Amino acid sequence: MTVGFIGLGSMGRPMALRLLAAGHRLGVYARRPEAAAALVDAGATAHPTPAAVAGTCDVVITMVTGTADVEEVLLGPDGVAQGARRGLVAIDMSTVSPLGTRRVAAALAARGVQMLDAPVTGGVAGAGNGTLTIMVGGEPAVLDRMKPVLACLGNNIVHMGGAGAGQTAKACNQLALLVTAEGVAEALALARRCGLDPASVRQALLGGIAASRVLDVFGARMIDRQLPAAFPSRLYHKDLHIVFDIARGAGQALPAASVVMEHIDTLMARDLGGQDISVLIELLEEAVK
Amino acid sequence: MTVGFIGLGSMGRPMALRLLAAGHRLGVYARRPEAAAALVDAGATAHPTPAAVAGTCDVVITMVTGTADVEEVLLGPDGVAQGARRGLVAIDMSTVSPLGTRRVAAALAARGVQMLDAPVTGGVAGAGNGTLTIMVGGEPAVLDRMKPVLACLGNNIVHMGGAGAGQTAKACNQLALLVTAEGVAEALALARRCGLDPASVRQALLGGIAASRVLDVFGARMIDRQLPAAFPSRLYHKDLHIVFDIARGAGQALPAASVVMEHIDTLMARDLGGQDISVLIELLEEAVK
Repeated sequence: MTVGFIGLGSMGRPMALRLLAAGHRLGVYARRPEAAAALVDAGATAHPTPAAVAGTCDVVITMVTGTADVEEVLLGPDGVAQGARRGLVAIDMSTVSPLGTRRVAAALAARGVQMLDAPVTGGVAGAGNGTLTIMVGGEPAVLDRMKPVLACLGNNIVHMGGAGAGQTAKACNQLALLVTAEGVAEALALARRCGLDPASVRQALLGGIAASRVLDVFGARMIDRQLPAAFPSRLYHKDLHIVFDIARGAGQALPAASVVMEHIDTLMARDLGGQDISVLIELLEEAVK
Repeated sequence: MTVGFIGLGSMGRPMALRLLAAGHRLGVYARRPEAAAALVDAGATAHPTPAAVAGTCDVVITMVTGTADVEEVLLGPDGVAQGARRGLVAIDMSTVSPLGTRRVAAALAARGVQMLDAPVTGGVAGAGNGTLTIMVGGEPAVLDRMKPVLACLGNNIVHMGGAGAGQTAKACNQLALLVTAEGVAEALALARRCGLDPASVRQALLGGIAASRVLDVFGARMIDRQLPAAFPSRLYHKDLHIVFDIARGAGQALPAASVVMEHIDTLMARDLGGQDISVLIELLEEAVK
C-alpha cells in the first residue's frame, strides 16, 4: 500500500520510519521541510502540500497537535481532501477533541474520504518499536482494511465505536494517566517530607498493588529531575482540556482530575509548559500547610 | 527458627502457612480459636495467649488491624512482652500509624524486645505465593537476622529507615494506590457515560502508559461489580486516615488524596465499608453536574 504521513514530530517520525521499514511506499509532508529529511534519506518521497501527498496514496495518516492542525491538513486549501483519489482513507492519530473529530469525519465523508480516528498511547518508545496501543473510532470495515498498516505501528489495536470514539477513549487514558501521576507525586512528596528516600519508596511500591507505568517512568523523573523529559506538560494541558470538554458535555464530575487541571493550569501560568509532567511534584513540595 | 504468628485473618493465615511449609516451627494465637484451626491442622501449635506464644519463640510476627490491636497483643497484660525470652524480635506486619509504631517499639525496647515494622503490599494473592513487598523500619542488623523468615513471605524486602519508616512507606503506598483507583474510576465512569464499553477502554489503557495494577485488578471489579471483593473499603478508610495523620504532622498538602478521603468518608457514612473499594465508581456514576 502507498501510505502518506503528515506530521513528523517526536511521535510521527519514528512511526513513519516503521512504515517504510515494513515495505510500504511512503509519501510525506511536513510544515518544516527539515523535519522530512530523515524520512527522505530513508526512502520516502517528500511532497509540497498535503493535497500532493493524498494524490499518490491509498491512505494518509496525520499525526499533528490540535484540532485546528487536523482541519488544516485534511480540509484546508491545500489539504488532503483537495487531492484525494477515490477510496482514500484518512487516519488521524493525533490526540484531539472527539467533537472536532466528528466534524472533520463528516466533512471528509461528504467529499468521499473515509476517516478513522486512531490516537495512540505508548510514548516515543512505543512509536519506535511498534508497541503502541491504538484506540480506533470509525467504521469497523474501514478498520479491517487498514489493519495491515496499523499493525506496523501498534500491537494493541482496539475498536472503540463510531467516529470520535477513539478520541474519547484516548481522553479517558489521559485522565487515568494524569490522576495516577498526581497520586505518585503526592506519595513521593510525602515520603521525602517524612525523611524517607523516595527512590526506595518507588522501588517498594513497584512490587505491590500501587505499581503502575506512571510510577515506573514518571516516578523516576520526579525523583531525578535531571532525567530527560518525555512529553512537555503543555500537551497534557491540551489533553486535559479535551477531557473536561467531554465531561462537561456528558455531565460527568471528575473531582480528582479537577485537582490535576488546577495544577497544570498553574504550570502553564508559570510558563513551565515545556517541562516534563514530573514537574507536578514541585508544586507539592512547595505547598506547606 | 521457631516463629510465632498472631493474627490469622485473610492475610495472616496464608502467610503463616508459608512459614510452616518452609520448615519453621510455628506457634500461633488467634482471638477466635477457630481461626487457628487450619494452622493447627497443618502442624502449628496453638497457644492461649500472645505471652505464651512469645515464651516458645525466637521471633513473633503480628498481623492485626489497628494500633490498639498491636498494643494489646505486644504490650497488654497477656502480651508478647510478658512472655518474651531474651533476644526475642517482634515483627509487626500490620498496617498502622508510624507514630503508634514508634511508641510501641520504644516500649518493647525498654523490655528487651527488638522490633521491626514490616507492613506489606501484594494482597491475599501475594500472601499466598510469597510475593509480597515488605517495607521495613528498624535496625538494619535486626532486619538482616530476620531476612530468612521474611524471605518466606515476600520477594521484595526494602529497608526504609528507622522505627516507623516501614509504616510511613506503606502509607505512601496506600496513598498512591487510592488516588490511582480514583483516576481509574473517573476514567471508566467517563467512558461509560460517553457510551463507550468500559471493558474495551480498560483493555486499551492496559497497553499504554496509563497501565497499572489498579486498572487491571480494581478496574475489572469496577466494570463487573459482581466479581469477588478483595479488601473492604473500611480498611482503606483506616489507612487513609493514617496517611493524613502523617501528612498533617509533616505539613504536606495532598489535594487529590483529599478528594479520595471525602469519597471514602461518604462510603463509610452510607455503611458501605464492607464493600470492595471498586464501589468508588458508584459515587461518580451518580454525580451528574
